Amino acid sequence: MNGFDELGFAKIDTQRAERRGFPEAIFCEGKTPEQVAQIVKKMDEGENHILATRASAETFTAVHKLTPAAEYHESARLIVVRKEEIIPDPDRIILVMTAGTSDIPVAEEAAITSELMGHKVERIFDVGVAGIHRLLAQQEKVQAANVLVVCAGMEGALASVVGGLVSKPVIAVPTSVGYGASWNGLAALLGMLNSCAAGVSVVNIDNGFGAGRLAGIINSMR
Amino acid sequence: MNGFDELGFAKIDTQRAERRGFPEAIFCEGKTPEQVAQIVKKMDEGENHILATRASAETFTAVHKLTPAAEYHESARLIVVRKEEIIPDPDRIILVMTAGTSDIPVAEEAAITSELMGHKVERIFDVGVAGIHRLLAQQEKVQAANVLVVCAGMEGALASVVGGLVSKPVIAVPTSVGYGASWNGLAALLGMLNSCAAGVSVVNIDNGFGAGRLAGIINSMR
Amino acid sequence: MNGFDELGFAKIDTQRAERRGFPEAIFCEGKTPEQVAQIVKKMDEGENHILATRASAETFTAVHKLTPAAEYHESARLIVVRKEEIIPDPDRIILVMTAGTSDIPVAEEAAITSELMGHKVERIFDVGVAGIHRLLAQQEKVQAANVLVVCAGMEGALASVVGGLVSKPVIAVPTSVGYGASWNGLAALLGMLNSCAAGVSVVNIDNGFGAGRLAGIINSMR
Amino acid sequence: MNGFDELGFAKIDTQRAERRGFPEAIFCEGKTPEQVAQIVKKMDEGENHILATRASAETFTAVHKLTPAAEYHESARLIVVRKEEIIPDPDRIILVMTAGTSDIPVAEEAAITSELMGHKVERIFDVGVAGIHRLLAQQEKVQAANVLVVCAGMEGALASVVGGLVSKPVIAVPTSVGYGASWNGLAALLGMLNSCAAGVSVVNIDNGFGAGRLAGIINSMR
Amino acid sequence: MNGFDELGFAKIDTQRAERRGFPEAIFCEGKTPEQVAQIVKKMDEGENHILATRASAETFTAVHKLTPAAEYHESARLIVVRKEEIIPDPDRIILVMTAGTSDIPVAEEAAITSELMGHKVERIFDVGVAGIHRLLAQQEKVQAANVLVVCAGMEGALASVVGGLVSKPVIAVPTSVGYGASWNGLAALLGMLNSCAAGVSVVNIDNGFGAGRLAGIINSMR
Amino acid sequence: MNGFDELGFAKIDTQRAERRGFPEAIFCEGKTPEQVAQIVKKMDEGENHILATRASAETFTAVHKLTPAAEYHESARLIVVRKEEIIPDPDRIILVMTAGTSDIPVAEEAAITSELMGHKVERIFDVGVAGIHRLLAQQEKVQAANVLVVCAGMEGALASVVGGLVSKPVIAVPTSVGYGASWNGLAALLGMLNSCAAGVSVVNIDNGFGAGRLAGIINSMR
Amino acid sequence: MNGFDELGFAKIDTQRAERRGFPEAIFCEGKTPEQVAQIVKKMDEGENHILATRASAETFTAVHKLTPAAEYHESARLIVVRKEEIIPDPDRIILVMTAGTSDIPVAEEAAITSELMGHKVERIFDVGVAGIHRLLAQQEKVQAANVLVVCAGMEGALASVVGGLVSKPVIAVPTSVGYGASWNGLAALLGMLNSCAAGVSVVNIDNGFGAGRLAGIINSMR
Amino acid sequence: MNGFDELGFAKIDTQRAERRGFPEAIFCEGKTPEQVAQIVKKMDEGENHILATRASAETFTAVHKLTPAAEYHESARLIVVRKEEIIPDPDRIILVMTAGTSDIPVAEEAAITSELMGHKVERIFDVGVAGIHRLLAQQEKVQAANVLVVCAGMEGALASVVGGLVSKPVIAVPTSVGYGASWNGLAALLGMLNSCAAGVSVVNIDNGFGAGRLAGIINSMR
Repeated sequence: MNGFDELGFAKIDTQRAERRGFPEAIFCEGKTPEQVAQIVKKMDEGENHILATRASAETFTAVHKLTPAAEYHESARLIVVRKEEIIPDPDRIILVMTAGTSDIPVAEEAAITSELMGHKVERIFDVGVAGIHRLLAQQEKVQAANVLVVCAGMEGALASVVGGLVSKPVIAVPTSVGYGASWNGLAALLGMLNSCAAGVSVVNIDNGFGAGRLAGIINSMR
Repeated sequence: MNGFDELGFAKIDTQRAERRGFPEAIFCEGKTPEQVAQIVKKMDEGENHILATRASAETFTAVHKLTPAAEYHESARLIVVRKEEIIPDPDRIILVMTAGTSDIPVAEEAAITSELMGHKVERIFDVGVAGIHRLLAQQEKVQAANVLVVCAGMEGALASVVGGLVSKPVIAVPTSVGYGASWNGLAALLGMLNSCAAGVSVVNIDNGFGAGRLAGIINSMR
Repeated sequence: MNGFDELGFAKIDTQRAERRGFPEAIFCEGKTPEQVAQIVKKMDEGENHILATRASAETFTAVHKLTPAAEYHESARLIVVRKEEIIPDPDRIILVMTAGTSDIPVAEEAAITSELMGHKVERIFDVGVAGIHRLLAQQEKVQAANVLVVCAGMEGALASVVGGLVSKPVIAVPTSVGYGASWNGLAALLGMLNSCAAGVSVVNIDNGFGAGRLAGIINSMR
Repeated sequence: MNGFDELGFAKIDTQRAERRGFPEAIFCEGKTPEQVAQIVKKMDEGENHILATRASAETFTAVHKLTPAAEYHESARLIVVRKEEIIPDPDRIILVMTAGTSDIPVAEEAAITSELMGHKVERIFDVGVAGIHRLLAQQEKVQAANVLVVCAGMEGALASVVGGLVSKPVIAVPTSVGYGASWNGLAALLGMLNSCAAGVSVVNIDNGFGAGRLAGIINSMR
Repeated sequence: MNGFDELGFAKIDTQRAERRGFPEAIFCEGKTPEQVAQIVKKMDEGENHILATRASAETFTAVHKLTPAAEYHESARLIVVRKEEIIPDPDRIILVMTAGTSDIPVAEEAAITSELMGHKVERIFDVGVAGIHRLLAQQEKVQAANVLVVCAGMEGALASVVGGLVSKPVIAVPTSVGYGASWNGLAALLGMLNSCAAGVSVVNIDNGFGAGRLAGIINSMR
Repeated sequence: MNGFDELGFAKIDTQRAERRGFPEAIFCEGKTPEQVAQIVKKMDEGENHILATRASAETFTAVHKLTPAAEYHESARLIVVRKEEIIPDPDRIILVMTAGTSDIPVAEEAAITSELMGHKVERIFDVGVAGIHRLLAQQEKVQAANVLVVCAGMEGALASVVGGLVSKPVIAVPTSVGYGASWNGLAALLGMLNSCAAGVSVVNIDNGFGAGRLAGIINSMR
Repeated sequence: MNGFDELGFAKIDTQRAERRGFPEAIFCEGKTPEQVAQIVKKMDEGENHILATRASAETFTAVHKLTPAAEYHESARLIVVRKEEIIPDPDRIILVMTAGTSDIPVAEEAAITSELMGHKVERIFDVGVAGIHRLLAQQEKVQAANVLVVCAGMEGALASVVGGLVSKPVIAVPTSVGYGASWNGLAALLGMLNSCAAGVSVVNIDNGFGAGRLAGIINSMR
Repeated sequence: MNGFDELGFAKIDTQRAERRGFPEAIFCEGKTPEQVAQIVKKMDEGENHILATRASAETFTAVHKLTPAAEYHESARLIVVRKEEIIPDPDRIILVMTAGTSDIPVAEEAAITSELMGHKVERIFDVGVAGIHRLLAQQEKVQAANVLVVCAGMEGALASVVGGLVSKPVIAVPTSVGYGASWNGLAALLGMLNSCAAGVSVVNIDNGFGAGRLAGIINSMR
């Protein structure tokens, strides 16, 4: 009625599914496992996929007890409850890339989110700019993509280079990978914000979910 | 005599109760459980409620041994020793709000503090600005409040929106909820300080106690 | 041949026009007026619109001498040399919004950039969140937009609120408008990065050009 | 109708006067003198006082041409257009204090704002904590105040000391006065946020207007 | 010979004892317990007191095995090996003060260091500025001191107030006590650096040892 | 009577001269030339030297008109009004050092302050650590000093090296000299705070006055 | 073929060995032990030494199972797989120095890296600037070095002093050793970047590997 | 004798020329034109080239009056006094590169410094990573270089890409070119420090002189 279901400690946004083409995701950090489990259970009454991000194994255990259909993607720390699948358009590819192996969990969070929204996703991992030939060898895939998600820590330069190669939107995700003066993703974040390549925009550090969702929104435009 | 009781490692401010209408609260972090227990025991000789903030379970155990009347609010990490209750004025409501479920512990610290001071408190949780209809559905309660406490992490925008809706004082509490470039509450703090809504002032990150106390002080004015 | 024209102090990227659907723009800060004038003159041999950002009046004078067709948008500090116009699609609207009057120069930089790329642009100015009814009064226009650009300084909260209202991509542009703890746009930048509304991504502080260009790229997808 | 008057570059919030007991103030920075003059002229059709903050002499000249009744407070950089005066309640005093002489312009911005709202204001200047006897000599005035506004730069410690002396709300205004590691008000801001005195809340650096307005709102409660 | 003993992983400065009137202290963090134990054992061949700071219980166990005369001050995390005592001058008092109970471990590090150097030390704990009467009640002791060490976290304002009361040197030690925007001592550090009281200088956050040593050096001057 | 003279915009601390052995200095930034001139004139009725820091030439002109005995030290930006001179003790030398030529204005502010307090001051300029032989050539003077003031920008390392050479107190003054990542004195400030040499304490960036005053206080101890 | 071996989660850069004279090192943080073990095993098919940095004991266990020839340097957290040794040139010495004992792990990371590249390395530990005679006693070794690596935490001043003594390149490695305002290496980093000694350049905080590698590259030039 | 000439306000390091193969350069900021002129005149008695960095036109005028042989490089803000030229080795090339046109002044400071030291320098300007083909077109020159200096502002990514292409040392110079979240070179600095390409080290922001000098030192090794 009001556009949300009231749980007392949470208001589940039922209006958002229509509004945004996707149900409200649950951000697990700061919520108890029991709170998450209650929210998932309530959402499971609906018809949309459910996605819980930053979920610990302990949270998954609590969720799984109330909602046995829930699956857990450990490295991406995602809980997923799947409903009816959408057949993706094979010609509109979202390409998710990483600079290094350590960026993969964030990239998977993005990729799975886009896939849940019904998009075809391809992955290219470990093509950081310090070995630019590894990236250039993938030019064909890069040019074929409709939307690109670039996850990189340390200096975050991959977003600029990719942004200069393509004429499609590039969503840059700084990751907290690195050490010393990477300051938990600050260096990558600043690098990406200062990219002089057109078409690049940035989401929060390690926010694979946000990137995957935005990629899906853009890829649905026609 | 001097306006304080000397414990060696602490000086309990006996003058403050008259001065501020409320006994000195105990900030537990950095004190040993034994130190807190001694302070509570000494204060318990007086007639005022006692409040210990940021209390661990271990600290509560030590306090409870010496002062069996003590209660523990786990999620808000508060220890309370109640004395004679004040009947609140039902027409002067302090409204405590949160942007998300994860902000509730800080909000409860504020709400319980105000209640101990003898005020009527109402709570509205999980009305962050990304789903503004959830907030607008509560307009009646919002307009009825005499003082408002708004707890929000991430971008902290709820304080600005609420500040623009009411003509009463809004106490904004940034919380350390968030990730990446929220920098443990910095983003919310800066957002709230820069609010262009009149009537908004800010307390320290996660300082529910300070907000609850200030709300009580303002709500007592007539 | 190499995909660029060599001027010694600059390499004009002739390959980018094909690659990105738009010629390389000229960032004037740090270049002498004479350097900018030479670059514009060289680019004027081509068939694409030319755009020079952050241009001072002095730079425009130098450019105008060599390229009389150049126009100057003073508040947006843009120099434009127009070639054959593209007829915009009237059903695909890019909506450029500001929180305050002071954000208009950045918004105009975005709007003019998108218009030059052949898109229809609408503007809504001064709808900051401290008076949310001003925004809600524009709901129809907001819902009709295909891509949204939100320019805001101070706490930057408008991006979150707009992001929660629509199911289209929102490009957030923090501006350096504000004072004190806005730290020249830092507060707005952090607020926007931490937005919990899906579909929001962020460009550099005051980077109207980048936002306008990305809006155009996304609006061209079909 | 919509609750605002549309000027194109600005939306004057006509609903706010009822909503907040005070007309929308104009923040002049980032607006051209002509824009401010237009806004003042439009607002002058109403019945409320008008206040323009951060106004340069040049802006005042433009305003004065269209609205001859406008006055200019140079050190506080305020433009005021007075309408019918409210008789202040002599028993409810807002006390505005400064740590040093250099903080006076910010303090005057606060004091004049409160006075325009119809409150009685007293001033105590130059009572910084490095000479605590200067403050203690004013104890009577300090205790008599209903709401206190404390403006201080450098280490900002005055807010904590005053907060510990009174049982009324203290609004702390960090100022950008200082040098070196004061970082334009950051040191004072952090000092005030970390005040362990109850009843203290903080507004943005140099935000005398916001403090004066909040003081007026609180002082009107009964 | 060279003024140091070579241990391979460390060079013990034997020249410093003459040079500075005190042996080199050992900073334990980053050294293994075994390394510390070896250094203490080597130093024990000399005639000076030995002081090891930031020592864990585990480190003390290793030291005690090789040097049974070693004592451990747990809360101050100091290991001490005492040699022949110096009789302190009873008229030249170093006063060590804290704003709160949580600052005591740092204060003890300072006090014990000064005592080891042969000075008379007095302590006043928990006299933070939010209850200024607690400090003013100690005026006699404060005025009698020859050198003052002030340890405070949060806003660190005690140093300014004390600095304004006395005409002796005040050594300010910011502590990492606090939460939220205290940023692990940054707020206190900035507050102390910006103190407008003359005679105040600052050492590193939590550096009780450095403060105690400097107090001893100054107190030895005649 | 109250220990201060009231000027309305300032309270001149007449109690401080007795309390601190030196009259209150005037910090000119943020005060109008007329305000400074009034304060100097009022103070000139007393018997102590007067010192105004951060004084512009314009301020001096205003002061000189009302107080013809005032002198101006241009590079140190000091205004001085001298009263009866104190004969310095020739055996207790305050040594003021700089790392570079650009640090001299700050050093002169310190040196003149100490001299006004009646101390003998020596100067050694341009002995930064990148040419350590220049410093070592001054060993005799360095060892002869009773108190040392070390002014350095950039990396500020001179304080650590000097601190390791002597057994007397070293007052470190970070200066804003440098560029790039010196961040206006931040690098030097952090370097000095982290000095592992005992006996080093730090004052605010460019605070030559504070250093000179503290040096005088310490040098007066016996 | 493409210049890399594809493992799916990683692309091993086979072209880099030729290109950089050294195989790609493996940065272990953020990779699972199994991923590292797979990468090492794949690289072991080649003829170059293998180096894995920031390796936990758990990671070594996984690597050792698949590649028994692997050795572990615990304090430096390095895993090494040695192939045919290169005989170092005894006249071209890389000198690795530390300011303190706590900097040794980083220094060893640098030293072992250079040794693996076939260079002669000497070590001087614990010669921080607060006891400059310890450094000056090593002048002969310092002057004999061809390339110098200086590891220092806290204020990082050793790099400046060494840079002033020699006419060879100095690679400065800030370490995260320190406390309080060292901010995990920030103070040392800024100090080193601001060094006014010529010939000094800086790598990331704690990046012993990068320093050792660059030292080897420079030492190979002729 | 002491290894320096004493001018009172400066100590000219005569020992450094032998020690470092190059005379002391003069950093002009913070020195008066007259001071610089005196220093240059004194140095002109020797046989080495003289270099004054960050020199204003006004400083050059003062220098030129006393030393007519001085030349001025306006965009690089360098004053040079040439003595006998060294014939460069044509096979050992220092390559100076920039990401954009705005970085050229810093690059020229580096290039001229290296040339004065007797090295052959080549320049490639405006090859930022957002148009990577412009860089790849220069591969031959890049591979031929013996030492590389890379000047870049904004995200500073060029250093990483170049570092990955070559097996020679890369000296990265962050420039203050950029806007918004480039924070005057901070973004580029962090990006370069976090480069995962081996062989890259970093100097201070805009420190073209330091880079040019280090390049010369390395290029002289054999």
